Amino acid sequence: MITCTRRLEFDAAHRILKHESKCKMLHGHRYALEVSFTAKKLDNLGRVIDFGKVRELLGAWIDEHLDHNTILSIDDKKLGKQIEKSTGQKIYYMDENPTAENIAKHILEKICPKIFAKEDVKCVAIKLYETPNCSVSLTAN
Amino acid sequence: MITCTRRLEFDAAHRILKHESKCKMLHGHRYALEVSFTAKKLDNLGRVIDFGKVRELLGAWIDEHLDHNTILSIDDKKLGKQIEKSTGQKIYYMDENPTAENIAKHILEKICPKIFAKEDVKCVAIKLYETPNCSVSLTAN
Amino acid sequence: MITCTRRLEFDAAHRILKHESKCKMLHGHRYALEVSFTAKKLDNLGRVIDFGKVRELLGAWIDEHLDHNTILSIDDKKLGKQIEKSTGQKIYYMDENPTAENIAKHILEKICPKIFAKEDVKCVAIKLYETPNCSVSLTAN
Repeated sequence: MITCTRRLEFDAAHRILKHESKCKMLHGHRYALEVSFTAKKLDNLGRVIDFGKVRELLGAWIDEHLDHNTILSIDDKKLGKQIEKSTGQKIYYMDENPTAENIAKHILEKICPKIFAKEDVKCVAIKLYETPNCSVSLTAN
Repeated sequence: MITCTRRLEFDAAHRILKHESKCKMLHGHRYALEVSFTAKKLDNLGRVIDFGKVRELLGAWIDEHLDHNTILSIDDKKLGKQIEKSTGQKIYYMDENPTAENIAKHILEKICPKIFAKEDVKCVAIKLYETPNCSVSLTAN
Repeated sequence: MITCTRRLEFDAAHRILKHESKCKMLHGHRYALEVSFTAKKLDNLGRVIDFGKVRELLGAWIDEHLDHNTILSIDDKKLGKQIEKSTGQKIYYMDENPTAENIAKHILEKICPKIFAKEDVKCVAIKLYETPNCSVSLTAN
């Protein structure tokens, strides 16, 4: 099996509700997302998908929703509204706590199928680095 | 399947008994260990295991036993005793040659199960970099 | 299963025939190749294969054929001949477009089996970075 992987980085704030220590505080990371695709066969130029296409589609979504933004649980709306009022940004809310695990699942299961619906590829794996030393990996079913 | 991976680095000396060339000399590396875990389900905060917990448990073990130490085969005790006499350190002996392969196996099979016995996770894979260009990967049975 | 992986980097020019945008232009990358091996059992020193042996065998092949060279499709001979005439180098031609996918397949399926024929290892996976953010992965059948 051949897969192609594109790395995309973004800076975002988050906090983990009910965390036992300092992750409950609002803080930020430079996230690095590695997203992997397969295709039934290589295209006529010899690619799974053009690396530029992944940046164009998923990179645009990340720029619009996650980069230089704050990712919060929907249960954290009180804080979110205060931030929105102060800065004018539009918080990115998730149904669950914005752990690396949940962000990765959200992107693999909800975002990528929508974004790449018209492409002849399947997003088969996500690796999300919260820091250079801390990452989660998720493969599609 | 979702896994979380923590990278931990340490500096250690070793040598490979009977090596054909310069690895038989006592030398050192900055090792980087990437250890991966799965859980039956994410915890109530949305994690496999807190990244900080891995550092706390495995990082402490590495600090005590491997970092700024020398890793030798049990068959290399003569050299080990000379070093211990000179520096006062306590050599970390292994049953086999301290190749990256054997160190990775040792950590995956012997150390992690003991260290993480009380956590609801399984250590499923180890990647050990001996140098930035040389690594070994081992998955649990 | 235990695998050992060696990373080898090389600088090469290429272009993708019929590419929709700027990859049709002759340009270059610093490629990074990560090649992974397994063995039926570790050797008597405790290794899959000596990291130095991989560099010696595959590194020598890369140095001779790919590094500081140009990789072109066999259908791109007109350009290739012009380059050869100007610089005296010997273009590395491939049967297909020199995408990362095709270069990785070529190395995994054609080159490694030949180069490592006398070693007790199997080359089981290739990861080829075209840039630090763009890579392809291929596993052996």
